[in-house]
Amino acid sequence: MSSTVRIALDVMGGDHGPDVVLPGAEIALLRHPDIRYQLFGDEARIAALLAKHPRLAAASTVFHTDVTVQMDDKPSQALRKGRRVSSMWRAIDAVRTGEADCAVSAGNTGALMAMAKVNLKTMSGIARPAIACLWPTMRGESVVLDVGASIGATTQHLVDMAVMGAAMANIVLDIERPTVGLLNIGVEEVKGVEEVKEAGAALREMALPVLDYRGFVEGDDIGRGTVDVVVTEGFSGNIALKAAEGTAKQVADFLREAIGRSFMAKIGYVLARGAFRALREKLDPRKSNGGVFLGLNGVVIKSHGGTDAEGFASAVDIGYDMIHYDLLSRIAAGIKGRPRLSASNGADVAVSDELQVSS
Amino acid sequence: MSSTVRIALDVMGGDHGPDVVLPGAEIALLRHPDIRYQLFGDEARIAALLAKHPRLAAASTVFHTDVTVQMDDKPSQALRKGRRVSSMWRAIDAVRTGEADCAVSAGNTGALMAMAKVNLKTMSGIARPAIACLWPTMRGESVVLDVGASIGATTQHLVDMAVMGAAMANIVLDIERPTVGLLNIGVEEVKGVEEVKEAGAALREMALPVLDYRGFVEGDDIGRGTVDVVVTEGFSGNIALKAAEGTAKQVADFLREAIGRSFMAKIGYVLARGAFRALREKLDPRKSNGGVFLGLNGVVIKSHGGTDAEGFASAVDIGYDMIHYDLLSRIAAGIKGRPRLSASNGADVAVSDELQVSS
Repeated sequence: MSSTVRIALDVMGGDHGPDVVLPGAEIALLRHPDIRYQLFGDEARIAALLAKHPRLAAASTVFHTDVTVQMDDKPSQALRKGRRVSSMWRAIDAVRTGEADCAVSAGNTGALMAMAKVNLKTMSGIARPAIACLWPTMRGESVVLDVGASIGATTQHLVDMAVMGAAMANIVLDIERPTVGLLNIGVEEVKGVEEVKEAGAALREMALPVLDYRGFVEGDDIGRGTVDVVVTEGFSGNIALKAAEGTAKQVADFLREAIGRSFMAKIGYVLARGAFRALREKLDPRKSNGGVFLGLNGVVIKSHGGTDAEGFASAVDIGYDMIHYDLLSRIAAGIKGRPRLSASNGADVAVSDELQVSS
Repeated sequence: MSSTVRIALDVMGGDHGPDVVLPGAEIALLRHPDIRYQLFGDEARIAALLAKHPRLAAASTVFHTDVTVQMDDKPSQALRKGRRVSSMWRAIDAVRTGEADCAVSAGNTGALMAMAKVNLKTMSGIARPAIACLWPTMRGESVVLDVGASIGATTQHLVDMAVMGAAMANIVLDIERPTVGLLNIGVEEVKGVEEVKEAGAALREMALPVLDYRGFVEGDDIGRGTVDVVVTEGFSGNIALKAAEGTAKQVADFLREAIGRSFMAKIGYVLARGAFRALREKLDPRKSNGGVFLGLNGVVIKSHGGTDAEGFASAVDIGYDMIHYDLLSRIAAGIKGRPRLSASNGADVAVSDELQVSS
């Protein structure tokens, strides 16, 4: 790692492309003046925006690309047309060549994961990557993974996700030995799918120094913050994440509507607006924006496609922290410390490149 | 069906047993005077309570049982000690013999499902039962299934759940041809697990008269009310349900805490209390209490174990409606109408009796 943190940006990614990515990059730069950006995208559009952001311009190098991966491209399509030439691929490639320490993109998740896998490859000892997110809880935040990199998980993959999630939690939550739970339906040891049970037994047996395994947790434990790291396979993880996001939005919408219906309630709202502001901040998805791709030979951060500059800056912040506190070495050390399970447990589920989460 | 609706109650089930079940039964009786109860449980405790509820006493017959299935009994344990003799078994058995039209229990879900399966058996043409719940949405309510009867689902099971969920939605939402979505991670046809994709193709192809298949939905579509019926396998369904419940509670707790911190906010709360009350009612879990076991030769309703009398009454209400509008015939008609898929698609996942959701 150089003394600066070098971040490659897919400037064209996301619903708003450069109009959100560049202002977002500047916000993050003000917080971390030691960032140096490599900007991949349409040179003319970037130049026009950099003219308005001189501080960002001073910290950036621009690399022109002609091809943009679209938000609705399938991973296979994106690879066909965008390999080597798209802003997304080039940002990831900068990480592979060592020109950049990490890549951040608000582009489509499936394409980003497919390109990151093809280009960076998985870390030695890791069979599959995972996407981890920060989930706001009653206690603060928890790391939840996998929220959509692949469907189904072997016992080994679940154990490896525990190690990788703990490494991330170690950094973002600044906890020496994060607590880890396996998501299941029911908390007794007897319940759940075979792989989850086996992974629970293995984690208990291993008693790894890098994490404190606490057993099974249920869907409502995530928001309660029962553990620092919640591990599950990508289908249920993605559905849990979206169900929770949907519910938070639903409650907020409903309350707004109910308040709008009465004059007294509107006055009440004004008086209680501090509380509402605190709630909004607590639930602000922009603050915990940034899915971290774990298990690859390089750090790649996925920002929400529809976020604003503040949200994109959060994704850059997460990438910055992952580099600053050396995520990859922490994962490598954790993986080295865990015994490899026999290959007999659980059939590996093939992951086609068609599997993707929406962005 | 007789002119009355005959409901068998597992009086000993749930965290509070008779103290909640009997007052709850009376609340439902006031709403539906044509209910006749068969009460299974400890005769002495029931008699003491019935003395205080003369209207309930007049509509009830008591059957003494000695054995109570505990909330933490494993399904296999419950079957061993409670078969034929427990209040839970006897309530289900009354449905099997035709003495009762439906059974309601607040007892442990795994044990209840195991006993219901063993005693009632699955309907002809249905391989596996499912648990359906009512999920409060922005538009009203949706039926979501499976929320924990079994883990994993074949294509056939997903299709059958669509039919069964539509039959239930037809009754509780009073919609002629309910809209149905398959829960997936991403809305394009190309995404997701093989079984979900195949079930989507099959439902589109079948164009059944009993339901209007609308394609894939994501986790945040559930609370949005995008479709009337959301179909998924039990692991992800249970996790989605609990993640959403947890989030709703988390938002409410946080708002309460934030309001408690400031005097002005407290005054504001008083002025806006109508809005807060509306929100509480909207999210009141007691109002949508009652998991419906679908696919069995009989109607069994699972009430939350920790609910109060009002909540238990909601579960009885749901059972009443299912009988009054003849759920089983509607399911049978729907299943008869759907072509049987070839057995080749998707391996059936063995469901051990250890699989259960917490109550």
